[in-house]
Amino acid sequence: MKKLLLTAVFFFLLSSKQYGQDSIEHQIEKIYALALTQGKSYHWLDHLANRIGGRLSGSLNSELSIQWAEEQLKEMGFEDIWLQEVMVPKWVRGNYEYASFETQPGNSIHVDVCALGGSIGTSIFGLEAPVIEVQSFEELEELGRGKIEGKFVFYNKAMPPEFISPLDAYRSTVQQRTQGAYRAAQLGAVGAIVRSLTLTQDDFPHTGNMSYGDLANRNRIPAIAISTNSADLLSSMLKLNPDLVFYLKQNSKNYPEILSHNVIVEMIGSEFPEQIIVFGGHLDSWDLGDGAHDDGAGVVQSMDVLHLFHLLDYKPKRTLRLVLWTNEENGLKGATTYAQEAIEKGENHIFAIESDAGGFSPRGFTFEATDEQFKKLQSWQRFFHPYYADRFVRDGSSPDVVPLRNGTTVLAGLRPDLQRYFEFHHAANDTFDQVNKRELELGAAALASLIYLVDQFGI
Amino acid sequence: MKKLLLTAVFFFLLSSKQYGQDSIEHQIEKIYALALTQGKSYHWLDHLANRIGGRLSGSLNSELSIQWAEEQLKEMGFEDIWLQEVMVPKWVRGNYEYASFETQPGNSIHVDVCALGGSIGTSIFGLEAPVIEVQSFEELEELGRGKIEGKFVFYNKAMPPEFISPLDAYRSTVQQRTQGAYRAAQLGAVGAIVRSLTLTQDDFPHTGNMSYGDLANRNRIPAIAISTNSADLLSSMLKLNPDLVFYLKQNSKNYPEILSHNVIVEMIGSEFPEQIIVFGGHLDSWDLGDGAHDDGAGVVQSMDVLHLFHLLDYKPKRTLRLVLWTNEENGLKGATTYAQEAIEKGENHIFAIESDAGGFSPRGFTFEATDEQFKKLQSWQRFFHPYYADRFVRDGSSPDVVPLRNGTTVLAGLRPDLQRYFEFHHAANDTFDQVNKRELELGAAALASLIYLVDQFGI
Repeated sequence: MKKLLLTAVFFFLLSSKQYGQDSIEHQIEKIYALALTQGKSYHWLDHLANRIGGRLSGSLNSELSIQWAEEQLKEMGFEDIWLQEVMVPKWVRGNYEYASFETQPGNSIHVDVCALGGSIGTSIFGLEAPVIEVQSFEELEELGRGKIEGKFVFYNKAMPPEFISPLDAYRSTVQQRTQGAYRAAQLGAVGAIVRSLTLTQDDFPHTGNMSYGDLANRNRIPAIAISTNSADLLSSMLKLNPDLVFYLKQNSKNYPEILSHNVIVEMIGSEFPEQIIVFGGHLDSWDLGDGAHDDGAGVVQSMDVLHLFHLLDYKPKRTLRLVLWTNEENGLKGATTYAQEAIEKGENHIFAIESDAGGFSPRGFTFEATDEQFKKLQSWQRFFHPYYADRFVRDGSSPDVVPLRNGTTVLAGLRPDLQRYFEFHHAANDTFDQVNKRELELGAAALASLIYLVDQFGI
Repeated sequence: MKKLLLTAVFFFLLSSKQYGQDSIEHQIEKIYALALTQGKSYHWLDHLANRIGGRLSGSLNSELSIQWAEEQLKEMGFEDIWLQEVMVPKWVRGNYEYASFETQPGNSIHVDVCALGGSIGTSIFGLEAPVIEVQSFEELEELGRGKIEGKFVFYNKAMPPEFISPLDAYRSTVQQRTQGAYRAAQLGAVGAIVRSLTLTQDDFPHTGNMSYGDLANRNRIPAIAISTNSADLLSSMLKLNPDLVFYLKQNSKNYPEILSHNVIVEMIGSEFPEQIIVFGGHLDSWDLGDGAHDDGAGVVQSMDVLHLFHLLDYKPKRTLRLVLWTNEENGLKGATTYAQEAIEKGENHIFAIESDAGGFSPRGFTFEATDEQFKKLQSWQRFFHPYYADRFVRDGSSPDVVPLRNGTTVLAGLRPDLQRYFEFHHAANDTFDQVNKRELELGAAALASLIYLVDQFGI
């Protein structure tokens, strides 16, 4: 009899476990089916990219996008929408950006350039100087002040195409953009020209953030990105005529900090309301394109997570908090302000995930986690196998969750296929038409599914 | 002493195994690096798509593409290029394709249509008839001759968006295109209108093969594809006015079979020359776009395999044979002729792989293999892990290798990410600009790496 009872209990446990597992798989199946049939990501992105457009923080468009997000969340039934105040840098691209160089006496050729974010402008007469091409800071240092002073430094290191991950290729070269002007100015250069960070040969200059570090105002120099085609042209012409003169005229400008906002809403957890799961994207973008991939995609996917949970009538156990950060691109003030207040309030963030790698076909996730946490995460990989999103890797996180790093909060990122990303990254061709509806929706589903698992089982 | 000797042998075996493994990984690393830096896929595709364009078998463009392929292979140093004779159907799209329906007396609206491949034309006066919409052949049969006779049958079943694999969604609906006209004609319909097989809402009609089966010539009816936007419009207008009259005028035409060719070259194996590894793509395409994804990508990737092996100065153990098949799209005569001659000659094909699913980011491969063969293949998955191409699935193969199916030859396919594929499939937007260079090159590298493994270790 006892044996029979034990057997019965065993089968009960087995079947309830079975049921539990089926029910997870079924729930994720529903999330995916809803995302692909009733998801709002693509519709929202259409508005954000095509009706609002590029939205550099501090700009009018940035404000419009914050208002729009607030309205959409209200329409979804959220009443307590928190607009968290954030002071952000305000940098404005000039109304002219022009560069050329003389190919032979009397003939000059236009090149495709754009100011880097944060760059000062030239004088109204423009800036004319010879060019010295380098591949690295080491080369720059070797050349020294004698060869650098009074010239444009032309950083022409290409993103290495043989890297399988374009992100690794980007990381290996991005310093020439972020620090190039600073390092060149220290040696007396008058300007910095940086090869665009893309693996594509084309005519789009790719902007991005740069810093003057501790340089005094009077020592700062204008910094521009140059398209890969124009960079190759300039490089080949320099070989023919090392003394050619480059002309740059642009009037970008820095203004005092102004007020912006993070947009935040949450669904309070029914069992563990003090455990917070944060997810989101950054609402600001660069000004050249319409920020469809970077990071319109992450914004609408994160909003869609809430929409999908509403469709499922899902009641979270833990508190699910959507954060649409401001000012990721040129200051990270949204993320640092958010993290600072969270720490001040003693909030318990157990998990923070950002989607900020483009609206491409999802392949999995990145994690910053302890071994134990990662082991638990890996036990969920199989749930993502049917959706081709089961590549779980330990890698650095998207910038907006990094300020939450404390050794216990798991930081994560949605990791889509990145092969096309840098074609559009920070350039005028980062536009809505380059986003595929299904790829975008699959990202929203992957994000919602992982959040569902963390909510159900903790981490 | 004996123990020492054994230990020495053990370490020798261990290190040589180690060496062997490193060498495989290193070889594949080199293949990928070369594909991404010196691959010719993209350059070739530019020519094939932009200079030649759509190349339906039997057309002048098809002949031009065969000549071009022969020239490229000669330039690579191949002397014995075999142009295998193949008789192919010749079907020509008319110089007009026009469809409209009356929305109210005196007002008619144009809809986006194209003839399906193999369809007969209408009379020179066009064809005017009411429309009956169905979702399935079951519905068609239920309606019966009484409701069908004298009408256009409008197959409006959409590819289900909730399917994760667009290929599965395609397979679930393609019968309305291939058999729709045949089934409708048997019930006395005067024409077939088929909703385009794509998951996208747009204005592109997607053509594709269809068959009249055993229908007598006099009973055949014109068959067209209609864009998804036009299909939705027609469907909604039919709800308002079930008696609306649809007008179609098109003059596509079938001609007698004509001579075409498969293009074949091989590298003879040094150890097992009688073991043949076949790989390739189909050189023909539909006529509407320029066949960049379908199957320009597969053609140039396969040619690139040889180019990469040349760069590596690789001497195969087994015979590597490139086949660029003709007439995949509307007859499969290239593949059936190839297989028939191979059987007649008693050739031993150990492995046959086609790349025919678009030039997208590769995710892995499909296989038709015995359990034992698949187990061996799975042991190679780890080599593809660093390249995100380690999804090995058992699934049906691309059409051109299917005639080689005999239970021992492993049939395989390169399996890229398919989310975008049907957006372009068989439509006017299947063009070069929709192919990403890196995604294409990664496919060539994956293909070359798998062929390298089969060549090294057999199957």
